[in-house]
Amino acid sequence: MAVFKEGLDGPELDVWTDAMLHSGEVMDLSNVSAPKVDKHSTGGVGDKVSIPLAPMVAACGAAVPMMSGRGLGHTGGTVDKLESIPGFRTDLSPEEFAAIVEKTGLVLAGQSDRLVPADRAIYALRDATGSVPSIPLIASSIMSKKLAVGLGGLVLDVKVGRGAFMKDLDRARLLAKTMVGIGRARGTPVVAVLTDMNQPLGRMVGNANEIAESIEVLRGGGPRDLVEVILRLAEEMLVLAGIDSNRTDARQRLRDAVSSGAAFEKLEEVVAAQGGDPAVLHAPKQLPRARNEHVVVAQESGYVARIDAFDIGTAALLLGAGRERKDDEIDPAVGLAIEVKVGDEVAEGQPLTRIFWNDEGKLASALPMIEASFEVSEYLGTPLVYGEVR
Amino acid sequence: MAVFKEGLDGPELDVWTDAMLHSGEVMDLSNVSAPKVDKHSTGGVGDKVSIPLAPMVAACGAAVPMMSGRGLGHTGGTVDKLESIPGFRTDLSPEEFAAIVEKTGLVLAGQSDRLVPADRAIYALRDATGSVPSIPLIASSIMSKKLAVGLGGLVLDVKVGRGAFMKDLDRARLLAKTMVGIGRARGTPVVAVLTDMNQPLGRMVGNANEIAESIEVLRGGGPRDLVEVILRLAEEMLVLAGIDSNRTDARQRLRDAVSSGAAFEKLEEVVAAQGGDPAVLHAPKQLPRARNEHVVVAQESGYVARIDAFDIGTAALLLGAGRERKDDEIDPAVGLAIEVKVGDEVAEGQPLTRIFWNDEGKLASALPMIEASFEVSEYLGTPLVYGEVR
Repeated sequence: MAVFKEGLDGPELDVWTDAMLHSGEVMDLSNVSAPKVDKHSTGGVGDKVSIPLAPMVAACGAAVPMMSGRGLGHTGGTVDKLESIPGFRTDLSPEEFAAIVEKTGLVLAGQSDRLVPADRAIYALRDATGSVPSIPLIASSIMSKKLAVGLGGLVLDVKVGRGAFMKDLDRARLLAKTMVGIGRARGTPVVAVLTDMNQPLGRMVGNANEIAESIEVLRGGGPRDLVEVILRLAEEMLVLAGIDSNRTDARQRLRDAVSSGAAFEKLEEVVAAQGGDPAVLHAPKQLPRARNEHVVVAQESGYVARIDAFDIGTAALLLGAGRERKDDEIDPAVGLAIEVKVGDEVAEGQPLTRIFWNDEGKLASALPMIEASFEVSEYLGTPLVYGEVR
Repeated sequence: MAVFKEGLDGPELDVWTDAMLHSGEVMDLSNVSAPKVDKHSTGGVGDKVSIPLAPMVAACGAAVPMMSGRGLGHTGGTVDKLESIPGFRTDLSPEEFAAIVEKTGLVLAGQSDRLVPADRAIYALRDATGSVPSIPLIASSIMSKKLAVGLGGLVLDVKVGRGAFMKDLDRARLLAKTMVGIGRARGTPVVAVLTDMNQPLGRMVGNANEIAESIEVLRGGGPRDLVEVILRLAEEMLVLAGIDSNRTDARQRLRDAVSSGAAFEKLEEVVAAQGGDPAVLHAPKQLPRARNEHVVVAQESGYVARIDAFDIGTAALLLGAGRERKDDEIDPAVGLAIEVKVGDEVAEGQPLTRIFWNDEGKLASALPMIEASFEVSEYLGTPLVYGEVR
């Protein structure tokens, strides 16, 4: 509570993060000869970036030892998404984790209980005492878990906007600077990129459908906003890994890894290594699919002025794609396909989003929120009138 | 300083505003039989709304006794713009002010020294002590000056965004609620509309060129964002005045006042009454014009992602359209014509803005800021990447 109220200065934050980091085991990846780099996102809606990015970077010759989280509140989690691949195991022991990254150059696991146990204890306390939104506590939580894996470089995707935990750019930049500073103090190069989370990223929001969209990206397709964010982060990783000297070369190498099929093969390899069925990657229709589809259409012609990522994420949770309580089971099949982007021109009756649903009661609770997430305006660009007070 | 640090609760704010309001004369407009309504903007860039709005509302049968301010920092001022009409006097005594509104139903003046003198003293103190950005102090400053004129209703245009004094919606809404509350406590109905000030409003930024654009609106033309904001605010004024029972009817009445020429004639009337030359309204090319024009073009093809109203406003000031020091003379002829809006698709080489300039040194200091105000992005909609931290 004192940290929440008073903050931490640089040296204090360094000592604090060090204590967190050494509250449990530290991973030994000394047998991995390739340069080890990782990416972490502060969390968003439709943020499946890790799933295509990690195999792309690994296919370019870096090792990516990635531990990810589950969905939290309105945001999705990489671990939940990966578990919609039949058989795929994310609960790896540190020994399994090390063995897989050594063999394939890539591992996609959940957070191990044996690393940074202090983080779980402190997070539970913060959750109970209303002290979650503290920049030094968020920064040290993220950085201690990443540093415990032992990395040569880390790229942070700091999300900003309605669907992010940081709603405004100034706070996001402060968080980014704090995390970069922690890395620097410990000799780990860190680059933070601030990216938009006002509208969902890419087209799919859910779990299995986000895996399908990730496969599309590895096949050379995918929505261009998603592809751009992936390339922007992945090129930083290759430069940190020393594989390329500049981002332009790195981007070309990443594009080549996709067009040659090497990145897709890397995903097949890791899926097989973690107990999943790689055949499903060739036939994404075999991923869990919802029984029903409901289409939300534009009520008027105009321009899409807003697609509220927070409300879309919350609605996906209500559909069953996330957890209301910690022990809830998620339904990997439900979610949304968002058919427009902010700025698009739409005609009355044109689909805004498809909803994949299984439970009528859950659809009924999510639908009004989904409909309200979209604003179609007479004007292109930013909204002209935000509201009124009487 | 205590108010700045601790705020004011409702009853305190009411007493405070009452003391401000009675620190000088209070206007007696009892001879004006028409319902008296006014509009106030918290300030923006390209915000010439008052100049076409006031004659439109007056032409519909309300009386508009408007006292406006000069430019402040990066924002323009209605009084400065009006003074680019040759001969037009804005320094009216309260007696002249009352006589003109009684005769024409409309007056467009500067703030009289005899009203609310406490505001000038307190503002000078706030300026010197860094206590300008205080919601209760901003609210009481605006409302005491408006209430001192004696109104039947007031519409507030609370600007939000990069070019506004309120950068975020939550603070803007709080300011709006505070001002509406002050009005309610004194029995004056107030409606606040929150409007966008991330990009400049309309096409023109400057002084004489904003008068020309105001004339365009009164002739039935003008940029649609500007026209929409004018109609949105003016329709609230007619409803407050009791002239229309709903905004739809009010909007039709306002459109009719423009298409019949009645609104334009009302501007002619008030210009003549305040010593200006109405002939110039028929020949806007006779307004002060800069000797030179410089065109800034798009460096790449794409979509306009940002036109930073704060930077554009500051650049207009540097060109000579505003004051760096209180006693600076402004140059009514200089300014910008912004040729695109956020969301527009542009081709490489297409004009983004024309700069009207007279002084080469001033152009040189403003130009880099103007060029940096525009962001052309590969993507439509919100920017994808905001920046990075290393």
